[in-house]
Amino acid sequence: MNNLPAAERLLTRQARLAVLINQEGLEALALNPGPTLTYLTGLNFHLSERPVVLLFVPHTPPVLVLPELEAGKIDTLPFPVQAFPYNEDPDSWPGVFRQAVLATGLKDRKVGVESGRMRFLELSLLQAAGEETLFEAADTILARLRMQKDAYEIEQMRAAVQIAQKALQATLSVVKPGMSEREIAAELTMQIYRNGSDAELPFSPIVSAGPNGANPHATPTNRLLVPGDLLVIDWGASTNGYFSDLTRTFAIGDVDPELTHIVEIVGEANAAAREFAAPGVSAGSVDQAARQVIEKAGYGEFFIHRTGHGLGMETHEPPYIRSGNALVLEPGMTFTIEPGIYLPGNNGVRIEDDMVITDQGAESLSDLPRQLQQIG
Amino acid sequence: MNNLPAAERLLTRQARLAVLINQEGLEALALNPGPTLTYLTGLNFHLSERPVVLLFVPHTPPVLVLPELEAGKIDTLPFPVQAFPYNEDPDSWPGVFRQAVLATGLKDRKVGVESGRMRFLELSLLQAAGEETLFEAADTILARLRMQKDAYEIEQMRAAVQIAQKALQATLSVVKPGMSEREIAAELTMQIYRNGSDAELPFSPIVSAGPNGANPHATPTNRLLVPGDLLVIDWGASTNGYFSDLTRTFAIGDVDPELTHIVEIVGEANAAAREFAAPGVSAGSVDQAARQVIEKAGYGEFFIHRTGHGLGMETHEPPYIRSGNALVLEPGMTFTIEPGIYLPGNNGVRIEDDMVITDQGAESLSDLPRQLQQIG
Repeated sequence: MNNLPAAERLLTRQARLAVLINQEGLEALALNPGPTLTYLTGLNFHLSERPVVLLFVPHTPPVLVLPELEAGKIDTLPFPVQAFPYNEDPDSWPGVFRQAVLATGLKDRKVGVESGRMRFLELSLLQAAGEETLFEAADTILARLRMQKDAYEIEQMRAAVQIAQKALQATLSVVKPGMSEREIAAELTMQIYRNGSDAELPFSPIVSAGPNGANPHATPTNRLLVPGDLLVIDWGASTNGYFSDLTRTFAIGDVDPELTHIVEIVGEANAAAREFAAPGVSAGSVDQAARQVIEKAGYGEFFIHRTGHGLGMETHEPPYIRSGNALVLEPGMTFTIEPGIYLPGNNGVRIEDDMVITDQGAESLSDLPRQLQQIG
Repeated sequence: MNNLPAAERLLTRQARLAVLINQEGLEALALNPGPTLTYLTGLNFHLSERPVVLLFVPHTPPVLVLPELEAGKIDTLPFPVQAFPYNEDPDSWPGVFRQAVLATGLKDRKVGVESGRMRFLELSLLQAAGEETLFEAADTILARLRMQKDAYEIEQMRAAVQIAQKALQATLSVVKPGMSEREIAAELTMQIYRNGSDAELPFSPIVSAGPNGANPHATPTNRLLVPGDLLVIDWGASTNGYFSDLTRTFAIGDVDPELTHIVEIVGEANAAAREFAAPGVSAGSVDQAARQVIEKAGYGEFFIHRTGHGLGMETHEPPYIRSGNALVLEPGMTFTIEPGIYLPGNNGVRIEDDMVITDQGAESLSDLPRQLQQIG
């Protein structure tokens, strides 16, 4: 199913979902805008104040409630849908939702939703349209649907990694002491676009230096780079809706020997997890492979997050590479390996690669140098 | 309350919300990441697979459930919060939510939520933690809380408009026939950042020419500009979390006289609505002021959307400038005026400005030329 034309790819995905819905004892799925809706239909909608819902009942054409304004998007769909467009007056929406739910025969049914996506707005309209409908999280079957990427998807991710890598290299050629985190982030963002990323980035680049690097989710500030800083850059690009997500750590001039040491430890932890990842291995044991390197070096308490997360059409998606996760890795699963050490008030390190599980082991899609490079 | 220090501004907002909650007959508000949470607390969280919820009960310190990983964000808050951090294991989250809900005394209460923001993920955790809790949409009181911008907020929006205007001017200097919509969008995006926008844009620029311009929500394509096209550019920037959102339409070389004519009509509709907007006037009648110009010219059926939407910390927020909306405009309200004419298979026009209601009338924050400019 790797090189199917788009229509066949979408219909195959819908057929797989139908099987999963039946296995789970659900009768339908209600999806609002997001990657799963796009994965199944090829349609792109944004979450907005205008609700959009796809009702997917196995073996019947999907039902789609959407604004009239966006109805043009379904003209070129390569499969039939039952469309229920509504106008700009919110008072008319409940009636349209009622018609749509009636069209599915979905009154009084068990309907799965994406818990991180479905909102009170759509839930209320669906609930009012089919009063006995019971909603439940369908996250597990949606993870099963989307976790194993096919060759087309991996090709997109590979391209997104290449764009990100080129963008960083172009940015590094201008980074020097005295620049602010924000200036570097702006330059990197421009380079990500210049090197061919789609408009929607997976996230805004994190550029954090010195003590700011000790916060894994730092927002770039006006603080200027000074010699002795570690500089953490976490960034990504997108290609046809698929993301990359990388991190590298640099030294600004000469840094304290302890900082050189923790960069080496994190590099070893990153390598250990990359080498351990393989089909049949659990996500939790990949986390453990990285974690034990850092613990053994005496920095366990400063590795304050999971080792990685799934990556694809979302920046964070299953499989989560976290302690205790029994999920077994299978070929085609894609995720980050990103161990770190964060010394509060001092500095931080993180080294992150994008991995795909292969038939035999795992491949890193990213190959920028991981050892500490000195700038300035 | 215009030039208050940040701490006082936040506490004033919380006090106003407490009054609104009581008036509405609610007992609390449950907020997840988004502009309202930021407006009330100054905190920035992203929607992710890790739930974050602020429980706001009038006259008690807010309760915040959040990942341990993000707990550093509350260290510098200028008011007390009761924090309930959780770890990376999702199985531990329900217990933490239960403790948080117990700490509020919120069991068996009426709790307001933002319907376009609150997700099944957080709702399920809150529901399980306080089984008799009844959730209802609090959109009306949140609109009342945030619709009237203070001087600080308008200053941010003015800055975001200036960045957007400079970015367009820089982009226009390189636009010429033979460029693709995507190339222009990439250049404009870079210019938005180069001119000082924050990382999170209100939306990715829309650049659509010729027949693509007839779709108001078009995504930039690889189609090349050719003489005879109308070129629609819809873009914005952000400053400290506040947005701008503008549209201008250009002619590529000589265009059909009907196209020149519809650009003039849309310009007149835009001017009519800008002049009509004033305190005491309804949002619906501002829509009508634009709509009647287009209807009178015989193009009513081709103006297929509302005249505008509120703008601020969200790209679309109340007040909605749509037919029949009885909401009365008041000083400090900010919104777009963006009439358009869309001729399917032919071309489209839209002219959009960002307005603020003043004591006497309304001011346009944007002042780029609105008449048809020819390129190439």
